[in-house]
Amino acid sequence: MRVRPGEGAFALFTDQYELSMLQSYRAEGMDGLAVFSLFVRRLPPTRNYLLACGLETVLDYLEELRFTVEDLAYLRRIEQFSPDFLEALADFRFAGDVFAVPEGTPVFANEPILEVEAPISQAQLVETFVMNQVHLATVLASKAARVVDAADGRAVVDFGSRRMHGIDAALKAARAFFIAGLDATSNLLAGSLYGVPVSGTMAHSYIQAHDSEMAAFRAFARQFPETILLVDTYDTLDGVRRVIELSRELGEVFRVRGVRLDSGDLGGLAKAARDLLDEAGLPRVKIFASGGLDETEIARLIAEGAPIEGFGIGTALGVSQDAPGLDIAYKLVAYEGRGRLKLSAGKPILPGRKQVFRLEEDGRAIGDVIARAEESLPGRPLLQPVMRAGRRLRPADPLADMRGRAFAERALLAPELRGLSPADPVYPVAVSACLSDYQEEVRRAVLNGA
Amino acid sequence: MRVRPGEGAFALFTDQYELSMLQSYRAEGMDGLAVFSLFVRRLPPTRNYLLACGLETVLDYLEELRFTVEDLAYLRRIEQFSPDFLEALADFRFAGDVFAVPEGTPVFANEPILEVEAPISQAQLVETFVMNQVHLATVLASKAARVVDAADGRAVVDFGSRRMHGIDAALKAARAFFIAGLDATSNLLAGSLYGVPVSGTMAHSYIQAHDSEMAAFRAFARQFPETILLVDTYDTLDGVRRVIELSRELGEVFRVRGVRLDSGDLGGLAKAARDLLDEAGLPRVKIFASGGLDETEIARLIAEGAPIEGFGIGTALGVSQDAPGLDIAYKLVAYEGRGRLKLSAGKPILPGRKQVFRLEEDGRAIGDVIARAEESLPGRPLLQPVMRAGRRLRPADPLADMRGRAFAERALLAPELRGLSPADPVYPVAVSACLSDYQEEVRRAVLNGA
Repeated sequence: MRVRPGEGAFALFTDQYELSMLQSYRAEGMDGLAVFSLFVRRLPPTRNYLLACGLETVLDYLEELRFTVEDLAYLRRIEQFSPDFLEALADFRFAGDVFAVPEGTPVFANEPILEVEAPISQAQLVETFVMNQVHLATVLASKAARVVDAADGRAVVDFGSRRMHGIDAALKAARAFFIAGLDATSNLLAGSLYGVPVSGTMAHSYIQAHDSEMAAFRAFARQFPETILLVDTYDTLDGVRRVIELSRELGEVFRVRGVRLDSGDLGGLAKAARDLLDEAGLPRVKIFASGGLDETEIARLIAEGAPIEGFGIGTALGVSQDAPGLDIAYKLVAYEGRGRLKLSAGKPILPGRKQVFRLEEDGRAIGDVIARAEESLPGRPLLQPVMRAGRRLRPADPLADMRGRAFAERALLAPELRGLSPADPVYPVAVSACLSDYQEEVRRAVLNGA
Repeated sequence: MRVRPGEGAFALFTDQYELSMLQSYRAEGMDGLAVFSLFVRRLPPTRNYLLACGLETVLDYLEELRFTVEDLAYLRRIEQFSPDFLEALADFRFAGDVFAVPEGTPVFANEPILEVEAPISQAQLVETFVMNQVHLATVLASKAARVVDAADGRAVVDFGSRRMHGIDAALKAARAFFIAGLDATSNLLAGSLYGVPVSGTMAHSYIQAHDSEMAAFRAFARQFPETILLVDTYDTLDGVRRVIELSRELGEVFRVRGVRLDSGDLGGLAKAARDLLDEAGLPRVKIFASGGLDETEIARLIAEGAPIEGFGIGTALGVSQDAPGLDIAYKLVAYEGRGRLKLSAGKPILPGRKQVFRLEEDGRAIGDVIARAEESLPGRPLLQPVMRAGRRLRPADPLADMRGRAFAERALLAPELRGLSPADPVYPVAVSACLSDYQEEVRRAVLNGA
């Protein structure tokens, strides 16, 4: 989580079965090189693509991973593991390799987002944390990309901390949203940790605590002359009239940037507010809207011509309301140089280390091919080596670069993929002949061996 | 979050506008006593009640809340606040009172879950964190209560850490789920922090890494004789046959407790597996199921007579898939002894400090009345004083007690409220005549004053 630098790693943030398997591997003398692949089996019906996100947190974790004295004391206390195994755990470090798609890259079903190559104990233990963090960031960045596209160039600010799932979610969300194209977050801790721009004005309670709305506007504008005033506490258009009154009181000192509407018929109120402000000679006072918005509602407001210059968005984005979970998997695909898969119904696995090649034509992505890692096919390879022997190969990119990448990569997608409706046809993702043959070969080997 | 004791508080986990308002209040010399009320405006269509949860984290936070040197350095850096305000922030402490419904109590729309009475700066600043934590825990406990009822006495284990929204969500979820009646979590850190029982066996990767499923079963049962073996990696019923084979190999030493099915037609496979095990004289080997389960699917499996003794449940519970967000609010209801409300469309507020009285008849809750705090009405008052002048009034209850309370309180609810379908009629919640009159009085005062 890295809420504070140096807080140590989250080794115990793992499922009990990971440690059970590690103890068993150890007893069997099994610690061959394994490859695990992280991918999403199916996209939710309301996602035409996912925006890969969350890699840097994973790399932080892998670099710092170790069991503390307290962790080991707890593990001894629950009496599920052998004392010598727990003793060995004190020296546990992650010393493997990681290959990954850069944060901010669109990905599709079955494409590896990340592959871990390490002795099986190391690659296994990290499953829970790695999945948790890539899932969270990818869920949220993918939702945010839709919101950003719906807003069509207008400002979008994250107001969702209060209803996101916990502290970590709200912090990582602000980061993922910024990468996906949001402009700012209301969360100061996220600003402090990640350098995401912060933004915010006033709540209804501020207005309510004053004897009148006018008194509240007057006092707040004195402290924050360029603020955005919240106008819907009692009656939205009366609120706008009071802002106009304030502008007359203050004359040239009046520098209020905007008004925020937070309830009612936002489209109708925005038009009426715009008219009032324009008639009062205040075209520079902009209208912002919030209150139960999602990408569909934002698109509708824009389509009906609502004169709204920016949106504050909370719950629907913050919990990814229409698709809060992804069918994400972290699967063993090779052990000791041999491809591995399972045959469970409806859960196919592409064995071995892989690469994804993205084909482009005239500045447009036209299809991907999932291939074996050693293949060299036309197109741009998406997976890059990011960690070797447990150390990052380079420092994290600045967040602004990831955001730039996300914009550039999404610009390659056909407009229907970036629309809010399910794209038809979906983006074409093929499996290379070589990988397909290998999958069949491994399947036969498994059937013979099992 | 209290991942590690002493990690300090999360003062910066707040929305920027909270600090802007604080600066303005300070400049205006406004720091009168305020009451904020936390409640859910509407229940999601798939919830007949909510299970209040998350209070203890809030009390921890309120006791520890302070700005660190780094927090203040960040706030200076962003140049949004006045230097003298930031200087004063170094001494910020929460010294207010809190009244709350105990964790594990069913609550309904508009009922206060928690009320904060404090100087307005203190009650305002904590909004973001307080909402975030009560929302998260209540969302998850409420979903879990449905799962527990659907499982109808069978064991339910939380497998969801990998797809929950971040680290904090997974940890707080394990706690909320246990209070709501789940039996264990797979997350070791949650076990370590909260004392929730932990559980877990093996993953497909363990089977895949071995040369054969039989070799994997043999090795694992040697380490963990009373384990549950995962049988669906290649073919579920072949997997069950291998468990039977293992029982013959091991004879009296065989102590495997169960098999776990994780894919395919779980009901059909459970019956076939049960038959195979019974025929082999292994009635004591139980069947556990996991893989994309939710409360509806669990109820369906039980209704069709599937011989499943326990369920592992992940994503659908972990993200509360059908209702990941609640329309939760934290609203100013009184300032300087006067009730406050707003008039925004569709967002009514019940002014002043309140109490909820639960009426019971023959061991059944028959309705609630939301009243003013000073009223004394028939029924059991749900809100209790839990913090005075910034200090807890008593230590946190043991988790097992909260779990016991949740069971007892839910047992008071009519069966249709605990069913999976929307109850009709819904649970009756009235507003007392006194509160209703007061609301009208405050409304008139606001209309005159605004």
